[in-house]
Amino acid sequence: MIVAVDAAGGDHFPKNPVKGAIDSVSENESLTVLLVGPEGIINEELANHQYDESRILVHNAPQVIGMEESPTQAFKTKQQSSIAIGLGLHKAGKCDAFVSAGNTGALLAASTFILGKLEGVLRPTIASYYPTLKGFRLLVDAGANLELKADMARQFAKMGKVFCRQILSLDSPTVGLLNVGEEEGKGTDILKEIHQDLQSLDGFIGNVEGKDILTGKADVYLCDGLVGNIILKFGESIPGILMKMIEKAIGQSDMTKEDIQKTQQLLGSALGSFNYERVGGIPFLGVNGVSVVGHGGSSALAIKNMIKNAVQTVEQDVNGKIIASLN
Amino acid sequence: MIVAVDAAGGDHFPKNPVKGAIDSVSENESLTVLLVGPEGIINEELANHQYDESRILVHNAPQVIGMEESPTQAFKTKQQSSIAIGLGLHKAGKCDAFVSAGNTGALLAASTFILGKLEGVLRPTIASYYPTLKGFRLLVDAGANLELKADMARQFAKMGKVFCRQILSLDSPTVGLLNVGEEEGKGTDILKEIHQDLQSLDGFIGNVEGKDILTGKADVYLCDGLVGNIILKFGESIPGILMKMIEKAIGQSDMTKEDIQKTQQLLGSALGSFNYERVGGIPFLGVNGVSVVGHGGSSALAIKNMIKNAVQTVEQDVNGKIIASLN
Repeated sequence: MIVAVDAAGGDHFPKNPVKGAIDSVSENESLTVLLVGPEGIINEELANHQYDESRILVHNAPQVIGMEESPTQAFKTKQQSSIAIGLGLHKAGKCDAFVSAGNTGALLAASTFILGKLEGVLRPTIASYYPTLKGFRLLVDAGANLELKADMARQFAKMGKVFCRQILSLDSPTVGLLNVGEEEGKGTDILKEIHQDLQSLDGFIGNVEGKDILTGKADVYLCDGLVGNIILKFGESIPGILMKMIEKAIGQSDMTKEDIQKTQQLLGSALGSFNYERVGGIPFLGVNGVSVVGHGGSSALAIKNMIKNAVQTVEQDVNGKIIASLN
Repeated sequence: MIVAVDAAGGDHFPKNPVKGAIDSVSENESLTVLLVGPEGIINEELANHQYDESRILVHNAPQVIGMEESPTQAFKTKQQSSIAIGLGLHKAGKCDAFVSAGNTGALLAASTFILGKLEGVLRPTIASYYPTLKGFRLLVDAGANLELKADMARQFAKMGKVFCRQILSLDSPTVGLLNVGEEEGKGTDILKEIHQDLQSLDGFIGNVEGKDILTGKADVYLCDGLVGNIILKFGESIPGILMKMIEKAIGQSDMTKEDIQKTQQLLGSALGSFNYERVGGIPFLGVNGVSVVGHGGSSALAIKNMIKNAVQTVEQDVNGKIIASLN
């Protein structure tokens, strides 16, 4: 199993991708990681670590795509970027998957263009893990397709279900359509059409509302990319905001240092289930390959878990099962 | 100042509307409240309280619209409901405002039909308070109009600004358009069109993202009713979910009873800013009258604050200022 890792992606490269790669090969004996990026800076970073040199390889890619660059522009003009070269290696069969914490838009464009779509797929989608009281669940689409059509939405639901079954080990994943009310007939015309179309889908539990997300009422929350992207970024902001609200409350209280410490520990543990580092990232669903995208701020732990996710996606043949599910 | 209060609306009637009304007249010497609903149950509830009988009046309305009833159906078939009669009294000039924690859809339909629209208004809208680090701010549209048009969106932004200025006492309210990215040119075609159109609006700060909501980056968060409704219900679910996550963490910790109590107190105070009871509810913006809608679960405190909001909306001539702002 060879996974290519973007060593020039995310807010903290090459440090975090390098550390994540080294930790991954330590944990998984049959894994080799190919670090893709400017070889000078990668080798410099590697020099700070002890690692198995036969399973951490470096592949030079001199150009770096910035986190704020226009995705299509960057992909067109930077053919020597870690993203273009890493995905090219994957396409050529030199590795089994590609993992990046880089520019999501550029990654989606490059993955779709270089790897192509899986047989029968109308549009690839970005799924995102979402923390719920039952553990991480899936939000689809998280920003790739801002407007849905019924046939696309049905495929997203099916692909999400395959991912839940193979990677989250849920036997009978459920699908809920994010809407303004539970009753059939709620929402916009397209939501009504999607609802109607999904009636025949195994596991479809009907409309779900904003209040049902954090409770884990559904396993796959289906929505358009506009709603998904806003909900995703909103959710990511919650732990930080809460910490600020609690610091303010602490400041106005007469708590001792010891009390404050205990409270902060407790909160840290309670909010642990919001910590995306524990799951890392998800492959784009629907592309003909395994291209895992993670948060720009990914820690080494998050990158290690993205690599793990990539390995599982390959081993579980998620793509083969997606193709089968669409037929 | 006479405010009609729906004594048959919400999850806890007549108890909470009656208590909210009594507390309101105790606080405001120049206020009279008209309790509208089935007079038998209202009088029975009133018998449990001491109050100024000259300023708490009862107006019989025998029919009750359930929280889950179809809004248009309920409004058509229940002409003797507290909503229809209360709004009718307002239309006839027998009171200055109407306040209800009842079925939001029925209230919007009845308010629009009975009171009509303000001069120049294309569509009335539901605005909702949203808790941020800076205090409560406004989310518009919170579910009345699931799809936006540019001219509607511009009016919603203007009406939201008037409300922020008059009721939240913000001198120069800002407007942010909820979108998938900050840059101009992001989002769906209609979001691009709205963004373009708002360039000339005073206080427009451009696109804002999901992560910018709780920080209070904008004073008015502009979005379509689909996004608004999902975000609103999501936000309302946060305190309860957090409490569950924290209880779980407490269960796994070795905290003493005293520690637990201190922590819960602190959290209660930190999450206080999420407590909608402190603000109650907001009038529908754009209707030719003052019709304040609140949460179905409204406490007596929430209803008291809704009544206060209604009084302020009348006193500050919010509607007159909306008409002026649209010209």
